[in-house]
Amino acid sequence: MSKEHPTKILLQEKDIPTHWYNIQADMPNLPEPPLNPATQEVAGPQDLAVIFPEELIKQEMSTERWIEIPDEVLDLYKLWRPSPLYRAFKLEKALDTPAKIYYKYEGVSPAGSHKLNSAVAQAYYNKKAGIKRLTTETGAGQWGTALSLACNYFDLECRVYMVKISSIQKPYRKSLMEVFGATVIPSPSNLTEAGRQVLAKDPDNLGSLGTAISEAVEEAASREDTNYALGSVLNHVVIHQSVIGLEAKAQLEMVDAYPDVVIACCGGGTNFGGVAFPFVPDKLAGKGPRLVAVEPAACPTLTQGEFAYDFGDLAKLTPLLKMYTLGHAFMPPGIHAGGLRYHGDSPLVSQLYHDGIIEAQAVLQTDVFKAATLFAKTEGILPAPESAHAISAAIKEANQAKEAGEEKVILFNLSGHGHFDLTAYDNYLSGKIEDVVHGEEFIKESLACLPEIK
Amino acid sequence: MSKEHPTKILLQEKDIPTHWYNIQADMPNLPEPPLNPATQEVAGPQDLAVIFPEELIKQEMSTERWIEIPDEVLDLYKLWRPSPLYRAFKLEKALDTPAKIYYKYEGVSPAGSHKLNSAVAQAYYNKKAGIKRLTTETGAGQWGTALSLACNYFDLECRVYMVKISSIQKPYRKSLMEVFGATVIPSPSNLTEAGRQVLAKDPDNLGSLGTAISEAVEEAASREDTNYALGSVLNHVVIHQSVIGLEAKAQLEMVDAYPDVVIACCGGGTNFGGVAFPFVPDKLAGKGPRLVAVEPAACPTLTQGEFAYDFGDLAKLTPLLKMYTLGHAFMPPGIHAGGLRYHGDSPLVSQLYHDGIIEAQAVLQTDVFKAATLFAKTEGILPAPESAHAISAAIKEANQAKEAGEEKVILFNLSGHGHFDLTAYDNYLSGKIEDVVHGEEFIKESLACLPEIK
Repeated sequence: MSKEHPTKILLQEKDIPTHWYNIQADMPNLPEPPLNPATQEVAGPQDLAVIFPEELIKQEMSTERWIEIPDEVLDLYKLWRPSPLYRAFKLEKALDTPAKIYYKYEGVSPAGSHKLNSAVAQAYYNKKAGIKRLTTETGAGQWGTALSLACNYFDLECRVYMVKISSIQKPYRKSLMEVFGATVIPSPSNLTEAGRQVLAKDPDNLGSLGTAISEAVEEAASREDTNYALGSVLNHVVIHQSVIGLEAKAQLEMVDAYPDVVIACCGGGTNFGGVAFPFVPDKLAGKGPRLVAVEPAACPTLTQGEFAYDFGDLAKLTPLLKMYTLGHAFMPPGIHAGGLRYHGDSPLVSQLYHDGIIEAQAVLQTDVFKAATLFAKTEGILPAPESAHAISAAIKEANQAKEAGEEKVILFNLSGHGHFDLTAYDNYLSGKIEDVVHGEEFIKESLACLPEIK
Repeated sequence: MSKEHPTKILLQEKDIPTHWYNIQADMPNLPEPPLNPATQEVAGPQDLAVIFPEELIKQEMSTERWIEIPDEVLDLYKLWRPSPLYRAFKLEKALDTPAKIYYKYEGVSPAGSHKLNSAVAQAYYNKKAGIKRLTTETGAGQWGTALSLACNYFDLECRVYMVKISSIQKPYRKSLMEVFGATVIPSPSNLTEAGRQVLAKDPDNLGSLGTAISEAVEEAASREDTNYALGSVLNHVVIHQSVIGLEAKAQLEMVDAYPDVVIACCGGGTNFGGVAFPFVPDKLAGKGPRLVAVEPAACPTLTQGEFAYDFGDLAKLTPLLKMYTLGHAFMPPGIHAGGLRYHGDSPLVSQLYHDGIIEAQAVLQTDVFKAATLFAKTEGILPAPESAHAISAAIKEANQAKEAGEEKVILFNLSGHGHFDLTAYDNYLSGKIEDVVHGEEFIKESLACLPEIK
């Protein structure tokens, strides 16, 4: 629309950040340490070494502000980074808002989402440590796709435990991982003790993320040549995602803009942390933007959960993490944003939320798909349902700006495309999507499973 | 890999071409004119005006070298153009070739392919002419998706006749068109005389592109407020696609490269024409690259067809075009590259092939998917099966360069991504894809339906 301001603000490859930003250098309060799930002792590097390589454990515990990105990772980043920052001219026009809306688009990655930023880093460090195979779990399929491609680049075998119902409902995701060379195992499987136990009780069990995590961790822990890779929640994953916010800051500077509010969807918290944390130092200096994490009302971890130690999985195999949680036994209803159904949250996000540095909002699914459809028809990009949570919140901010007559600058992260989520759009267009809001009583019952910490 | 040479060669929005290039200004022999299908008289603008707006008819017949791109179209181009040119470092390494392989990636368009380049232009000119509705047909779904999005931007009703079997096999494509606001009608339908005739004979008929074209044209011809839009074959569509080659030339200049060979897949011929024709003036001046159109062995229009007047559709409603054709009654076997199953070809491509200015190759489907999978695992991008025909030919060139020890520069057009084609990949990985090569006798029989021209 404007002659002067570009629609896409592009950096060159030489402008890809050379270092990841580590929020742990700047937090007023560091998150409490993970605990061994059996002993409840503080988990040290040796506890994690069974399934993670040394370099990633170091990053997990590091308080260094900047961590150098290895050349081999930078070389792969060049396939899609720097990702574009868009000015949403057509969405602004449709909303008739004085707000300036910018979005960072991570869906340009070959895997279709921000997940590849960490997947290539994790594959690299595992390869360097002499590992031959990586296991992981996937629900929505975004992380599994990213790790499949990353393992392919470093000649690692990749074994993805995919929630059985997802492997049936999303056959395209499964095929894509197989094209990239991964082995996809519908979970529960009979390859692990965790899987066999579930199948013994219920041979027709359609799986859950909790069971898939247990299976992937069990396989990794039982083999010397095999490690486990997690696509969210942990500190090192948040660190890798910081390239999103670092680039976005530089791109906004190119058009002399600075955000009043930064928005991202929040499941495990790493796409939110990725775009928002590089703004935290400004925030702590009293001049930064509002930082808003957006979660589904059907899985309201930050807005209705408790800040407590909890397990990461149903089988209680993972370390206990201090985080906002709905309880590890929380069973989210079948909302379509599969990537936002996790009961817990990143300990870094949780601590910053607890300390009042970031905000959280819960949004209804019908509002999310309404926003997603408007976005597709204006900006042309079909967003992933997860990412559309951020769009929904950004539209709300833009409408408020209109009411107030403010020229607010809004930045949100469009974490991925929705090319493999069209069944969900179909359900929305045919009126089959329902909203879920949990009562206090339901949440209280769900939290009853939280472990007692001695 | 190289420190100096970027992986992605990027232009800025100000570098989007301001004019389309029209090959008709430079052809040694212009294509013969279209004929009225009933009278066999030369079809004039009035014959076409029933279903096309005046500006597009002018472009169809223009011999002006440069046609200005309207501001409204340029404004939409900014959503994804200029598209990136990639140096395929990782594919080159896997092939261990001295060749330098470049590919222009049109899959970054919101519709996922080059088709949007013409769709937004066609929607614009129709809107300007006061048209309220556009009809079209779609098989693979690429064109229908592009026109749906383009109509949405110009507030035109969009009615897509989708080959029934495709609408069943590709429900995601149908959903995406609906998200963009189009009405998708499985063809044959009972909304048109052409559809009713087919259904009367065979109520379970699963449709064909020929029938879908007949239905879309019939609806457009029968209503004042409605026109028809075609995504391939015609001259004005080729003209709109010239932005691909114009940008690619400028991008190669940025890295001081000039191609020895330019490659694209060829169905109706517009993606090939788009990337190749801007190089024809150099070619005519004796210094240009080889220009190679790649078609499936199962639908070998250029390599085994006849240069003759033929109908564009089965119901013989479209004008007769002088082109390479396998006969309008040719029934291609069920190969997966749905976009390359057309019996005919662009008259511009056909004339240049007849005059020896461009080359053609036919490739086997298993070779195509082998190339596609190697490409996905090296460059990270899952190609559309259509586009993978170009990859297959580019790999052959790179292997020949290796044998000859030549540092050949190869440019190919990656016309779209394959996110909606994973069923085809699945079939390839599970060994269900077969190669088809036609004998001379079969082609001769197929050509028997060619009309006699008085």
